[in-house]
Amino acid sequence: MTGRCPAAGERIGRGAIRWSGLSRERGKCCFVGLAIGATVTKNNPSHYFEDFELGSLIRHATPRTVTQGDVALYTALYGGRFAVQSSDAFAGAIGYPRAPLDDFLVFHVIFGKTVPDVSLNAVANLGYAQCRFLAPVFPGDTLSAVSEVIGLKENSSHKTGVVYVRSSGFRQDGTKVLEFIRWVMVRKRDEAAAAHDEHVPALTYVAPEALGSACPSISVADYDFDLAGAPYRFADYTVGERIDHVDGMTVEEAEHQMATRLYQNTARVHFNQFSERQSRFGRRLIYGGHVISLARALSFNGLANAFHVSAINAGRHVAPLFAGETVFAWSEILARSELPGRDDVGALQVRTIATKDRPCSDFPPAAGDQTDPAVILELDYWVLVPR
Amino acid sequence: MTGRCPAAGERIGRGAIRWSGLSRERGKCCFVGLAIGATVTKNNPSHYFEDFELGSLIRHATPRTVTQGDVALYTALYGGRFAVQSSDAFAGAIGYPRAPLDDFLVFHVIFGKTVPDVSLNAVANLGYAQCRFLAPVFPGDTLSAVSEVIGLKENSSHKTGVVYVRSSGFRQDGTKVLEFIRWVMVRKRDEAAAAHDEHVPALTYVAPEALGSACPSISVADYDFDLAGAPYRFADYTVGERIDHVDGMTVEEAEHQMATRLYQNTARVHFNQFSERQSRFGRRLIYGGHVISLARALSFNGLANAFHVSAINAGRHVAPLFAGETVFAWSEILARSELPGRDDVGALQVRTIATKDRPCSDFPPAAGDQTDPAVILELDYWVLVPR
Amino acid sequence: MTGRCPAAGERIGRGAIRWSGLSRERGKCCFVGLAIGATVTKNNPSHYFEDFELGSLIRHATPRTVTQGDVALYTALYGGRFAVQSSDAFAGAIGYPRAPLDDFLVFHVIFGKTVPDVSLNAVANLGYAQCRFLAPVFPGDTLSAVSEVIGLKENSSHKTGVVYVRSSGFRQDGTKVLEFIRWVMVRKRDEAAAAHDEHVPALTYVAPEALGSACPSISVADYDFDLAGAPYRFADYTVGERIDHVDGMTVEEAEHQMATRLYQNTARVHFNQFSERQSRFGRRLIYGGHVISLARALSFNGLANAFHVSAINAGRHVAPLFAGETVFAWSEILARSELPGRDDVGALQVRTIATKDRPCSDFPPAAGDQTDPAVILELDYWVLVPR
Repeated sequence: MTGRCPAAGERIGRGAIRWSGLSRERGKCCFVGLAIGATVTKNNPSHYFEDFELGSLIRHATPRTVTQGDVALYTALYGGRFAVQSSDAFAGAIGYPRAPLDDFLVFHVIFGKTVPDVSLNAVANLGYAQCRFLAPVFPGDTLSAVSEVIGLKENSSHKTGVVYVRSSGFRQDGTKVLEFIRWVMVRKRDEAAAAHDEHVPALTYVAPEALGSACPSISVADYDFDLAGAPYRFADYTVGERIDHVDGMTVEEAEHQMATRLYQNTARVHFNQFSERQSRFGRRLIYGGHVISLARALSFNGLANAFHVSAINAGRHVAPLFAGETVFAWSEILARSELPGRDDVGALQVRTIATKDRPCSDFPPAAGDQTDPAVILELDYWVLVPR
Repeated sequence: MTGRCPAAGERIGRGAIRWSGLSRERGKCCFVGLAIGATVTKNNPSHYFEDFELGSLIRHATPRTVTQGDVALYTALYGGRFAVQSSDAFAGAIGYPRAPLDDFLVFHVIFGKTVPDVSLNAVANLGYAQCRFLAPVFPGDTLSAVSEVIGLKENSSHKTGVVYVRSSGFRQDGTKVLEFIRWVMVRKRDEAAAAHDEHVPALTYVAPEALGSACPSISVADYDFDLAGAPYRFADYTVGERIDHVDGMTVEEAEHQMATRLYQNTARVHFNQFSERQSRFGRRLIYGGHVISLARALSFNGLANAFHVSAINAGRHVAPLFAGETVFAWSEILARSELPGRDDVGALQVRTIATKDRPCSDFPPAAGDQTDPAVILELDYWVLVPR
Repeated sequence: MTGRCPAAGERIGRGAIRWSGLSRERGKCCFVGLAIGATVTKNNPSHYFEDFELGSLIRHATPRTVTQGDVALYTALYGGRFAVQSSDAFAGAIGYPRAPLDDFLVFHVIFGKTVPDVSLNAVANLGYAQCRFLAPVFPGDTLSAVSEVIGLKENSSHKTGVVYVRSSGFRQDGTKVLEFIRWVMVRKRDEAAAAHDEHVPALTYVAPEALGSACPSISVADYDFDLAGAPYRFADYTVGERIDHVDGMTVEEAEHQMATRLYQNTARVHFNQFSERQSRFGRRLIYGGHVISLARALSFNGLANAFHVSAINAGRHVAPLFAGETVFAWSEILARSELPGRDDVGALQVRTIATKDRPCSDFPPAAGDQTDPAVILELDYWVLVPR
């Protein structure tokens, strides 16, 4: 059973081609199928560490038309109440053509596409960074995703390596709607395989200049703060301010499975109790993005006018969440930034901490040694708020 | 920590303004945020009894565009089979522009909006009355809600009081689609706070003249009784007739949570197992409206042509429902009424009784001392049936 | 309490009429309601064996407009990733007007309509055959169903009999979109009732000529195999080839209940834990169609370009599935067939075997004595694949 690809320099695995215009005929790469007897196994073995190559581009399956059906399910799964995403009338009044999709719904759909190619053989999702929302997405748009391998670093054990990819999401018209970097620890198929040249990309924080891309110019005079649920504007938030989001949300197996399938995310640990029973946790892991969406929905209670997530600086899943546990959250305002040339909205850098089975009225910390054992998520991101 | 509002006569809490055209600038009312140190807590503490004032109007967050996605979820949650709500073709044939939303879906969405302002600090939801459906709602419509405080009565304990509100739902064009009265027992923030003048509104039953508002003139000749599922018309039902709806439906935690979030209802008892574990029931309570929708869906089996709920006289949640329990229902025809000037439809006043873990073939009673211990809901409402 | 119908030759039960143009006035048939005292029970007792008559046609309730909401829920329930059904852009590029509904979603909706009339009193669903998808269905279409009784065979016990029906699904414009035969064992109301003349229809396999009906001519040059998820075409599959679909999917009660209600399928065993507690299994049975849809979604991993199910030769539910169990699947290519006059697509006859709590890497058999005890489904069907 040899899966090494003689043409790996040109093409890695299913759908993985250089941008140089290489043809996509099947059969070019032995990696697309492992020979067993006379035929080839046609299921997707995904990629191992040595299959990735710096600079390679992977066009991911499956393009997905997002619809009002997805929006309704997203509401049913998280209970979000941000007016811009809930109401065509509200969104239309301030300058959107209609209600855009929730930013994290867009993120999850794009992220989900990358899983079968990037992280199906991952030991761990190590982090993500430099996530920017670049254009709004509306019901009816079709989303697709491409990832570029931007870093590789074999671990000293020779059993695994870290792969860095920059993943981009596109609308049907070619507009890039989202971009983010993530890095995962991936198994090697063959410990003896030669190591790649090591390359670790520089990761930076998102610059404030880039924060307004996905938000049209809005008419603040037509932004109805009663309907939005709170009177607070950009100027009302102060750096260092902490907000308890109060409410708790218990997660059920059916809910996170439906969410994760809605995103066509195929990571096996979320769905297969038969195999997870043998894992160290003994049960299905909940997709980290589910926690993010819960925390975002809870954050409405205190951040009701933070109507758009424009960037994610960093996300850290500190501990796993399991069905039956209850998620709470609190946020701290890390920074405030005006947007160059815009007086309609300002940007708040927010750190949201989510916990499980622990209310956040005393703001449990998530910093180094002092991290509260109940903390499951630390998310550092930018939101836009009317001025 | 004082939350009393010096301008309470003009404005109560978040989004609560008189209809007199008062400005909505933030900061006018100290109640919108409780001071802690230098900043203000921005989460919503909702209203306590002494915050409500007779005649005040509360414009609720969040406006919500209802869509075919909501319709599909509603079907998945309850399994309703009424032809008018299921089929654009059927609805179009009899005179609707297309299939309208299920009446209770409209009710739940409007009701949900009132929760954060009216009943987040409620000890008990005491009742509702005079609910009238005034105009049909279609996918694509945006719903918003306003409540007027129409009654106040402090309890002798001085710890709580009863608040009566008339809540109205509107479409994006300003058409009122729904109106109902409900009353809740709400905590006082401060037992020593002065009592309001007591005012208890007169509650009446809905008059038959008002029952046709949300139903266009229909063509009974084009109403296909085969496709609708039963041959029975207005004239086939007799006062006193009792109908066992036969089927039982078991409710799961994920189902009622998804439903209640779909309605953006934020009542904490439905979602937070961590805190409910400490409650007297030890578990999450299921939203009473979930039981109503289940009973309505079950009632198809015997009331298949009762295609529109036009009014609710009274609803009583006799006992709570919990996940894992199975809902059954039966109905009695209380009255029959022709509609003035209409020969297409007639109105039936129906009392539907829902039970848990008890089939209804022997019509378990829900009257005073004789109330069967399995009864969880008694709903007195009007439906329209073709003549 | 006599439920025999004096006019049974003309009309059986609710909505059951001959195609000969008989009027549909209510009251013609005493079977539509059983007399109790002065009134008639209006719930649906469905049909017993002696109520069916050879050649009768049953027009089923409830017509159903299928929407993008249903599509989103279907994705959330099964996680399907076939590009044609997921993306309007992908479907549009190859020649569909837009993304069609998943074939099994259409099947389940039509099947669901037949349950209240055909199988509510069934002891067992014995099988189905000759299922053909005849026209694509798109969001916005309204589906309705009609069944013809094509066979009757009383069992020697005189307690039950087998009823064969040919069920057809139609779009709002009258186009037939689906046809299948199924047979169920139904109780007799009265063991002493005279037996029907026995008639057992001949069942045949679907002919390859009939396989292309629901698939427009597609442009293979515009079929993007990267986006579709695999490079394999018709010519890459060989008869006898076996494919492990690798992944496992655990099913929750809330999921299969929501799915089955979405299809408006009223079979009681799926929803009523109170009564199923007394059954031989002690719990709710999962709708067999739910297993089919799970197996189809899992089969993407190996059959990604099998974008359309064009026919089902036979389906066998070997054992029941219960919530908490994990479904796996594998497939064997039984035959390959070109389609007369078409060079865009070819047909593969596939047998997919689903198991519970047992991975399929060693292809557990489902044949007679050798059937693995973990097998729950054997499905023999035709799919179309680009050439």
